[in-house]
Amino acid sequence: MDVDALLTEQNPFPAGLDARIAAQLTFIVEVDRLKTVLRQSPLAAAPRRENDAEHSWHLALMVILLAEHSDEPIDVGHTVQLVVVHDLVEIYAGDTPLYDEVGARTQEARERAAADKLFGLLPADQAVRLRALWDEFEARETPESRFAKAMDRLEPLLLNWMARGGTWQTPGVTADTVRARKASLRDGSRRLGEVAAAFIDEGERRGWVRSARPADEPVPPAPPA
Amino acid sequence: MDVDALLTEQNPFPAGLDARIAAQLTFIVEVDRLKTVLRQSPLAAAPRRENDAEHSWHLALMVILLAEHSDEPIDVGHTVQLVVVHDLVEIYAGDTPLYDEVGARTQEARERAAADKLFGLLPADQAVRLRALWDEFEARETPESRFAKAMDRLEPLLLNWMARGGTWQTPGVTADTVRARKASLRDGSRRLGEVAAAFIDEGERRGWVRSARPADEPVPPAPPA
Repeated sequence: MDVDALLTEQNPFPAGLDARIAAQLTFIVEVDRLKTVLRQSPLAAAPRRENDAEHSWHLALMVILLAEHSDEPIDVGHTVQLVVVHDLVEIYAGDTPLYDEVGARTQEARERAAADKLFGLLPADQAVRLRALWDEFEARETPESRFAKAMDRLEPLLLNWMARGGTWQTPGVTADTVRARKASLRDGSRRLGEVAAAFIDEGERRGWVRSARPADEPVPPAPPA
Repeated sequence: MDVDALLTEQNPFPAGLDARIAAQLTFIVEVDRLKTVLRQSPLAAAPRRENDAEHSWHLALMVILLAEHSDEPIDVGHTVQLVVVHDLVEIYAGDTPLYDEVGARTQEARERAAADKLFGLLPADQAVRLRALWDEFEARETPESRFAKAMDRLEPLLLNWMARGGTWQTPGVTADTVRARKASLRDGSRRLGEVAAAFIDEGERRGWVRSARPADEPVPPAPPA
């Protein structure tokens, strides 16, 4: 995908629009690209991979329905905004799969550069506001961001379950790798953390994720801090 | 798509889950189907049609960025929830294109049956709550629902602009049909209504939507009340 030129440069808006609205609509068209950023997760409803826009929508609905399981009280409307915004930087930085050790090393730098570029399209006050939402999600220092992150871990787990393996079958990944990756789910909801553990345990029992790594396979990456 | 059986019937959850959580997760997996409901709108970022999940995510982001243009003060978090939920019934009822006269006649009955079926999967209190969000969106009696509906009209207009026509080129449709269909945009935001008019006027000038109907083409459907 050519991301050097803005989508709206291919077809500029009518002349004479108010500058603030033009900047907002330019951003709104540009983020159409999120629909083309593919994740590793397979859909449950069709034989293809999920994209980031679909994923972000799914998390938003999960927040609405599962908020009662947050360990701390959360503002549902604010949490929904966090998940709607959380993957925008992948428009320019790309998706870094959860089990991709090499990509993880450069992920933070790539995503910060992408945030500067993307949010910079907005009027200054809104660039600050969207950046703040994204920073809040990443830092996980608020109850809302911890719960949003929990949803970001739970959704692909459900899709992997429905696929009878999915990305759990990535080379080098074992049930313990998956458990380590899902640890942050418990930071938002102890209850949903237990539910996730039940899915992983049963997946391991059924052989959808391996219990141990064959000797000739790479060591799985260390879990994130 | 076989929608008689739930997706989770193809691969039931681990035994022993709490009944309330199991119902919530069953619903959350079932709505994965929204990612397979295709709309008529072409994406700006790729040569394919948009699906309902992508569309719902896009509206959510638009609410966050454009709320300042609402004619009445709105609760952004609540409005985002309205758009996240607004198309769920299309999982069973299908998408009814804006310029589809025949489909529009049965749309309400189909969507009400779909809502009963889909929301009925949830714990009773949440079925009531999601149904209320959907009813609120449809009724357009609150400032939040009027603004949500305005976003639902503005997003495909931007995509049609980027496609240099898109669904504006549906047989029987003229610039005046498009103007009538976008009238409800002004109910949420007079300002964005004017912006939409500028896009339609310029689209008409460029021939991306026709000014008048050829004599042998069907009369376009009457605009909705």
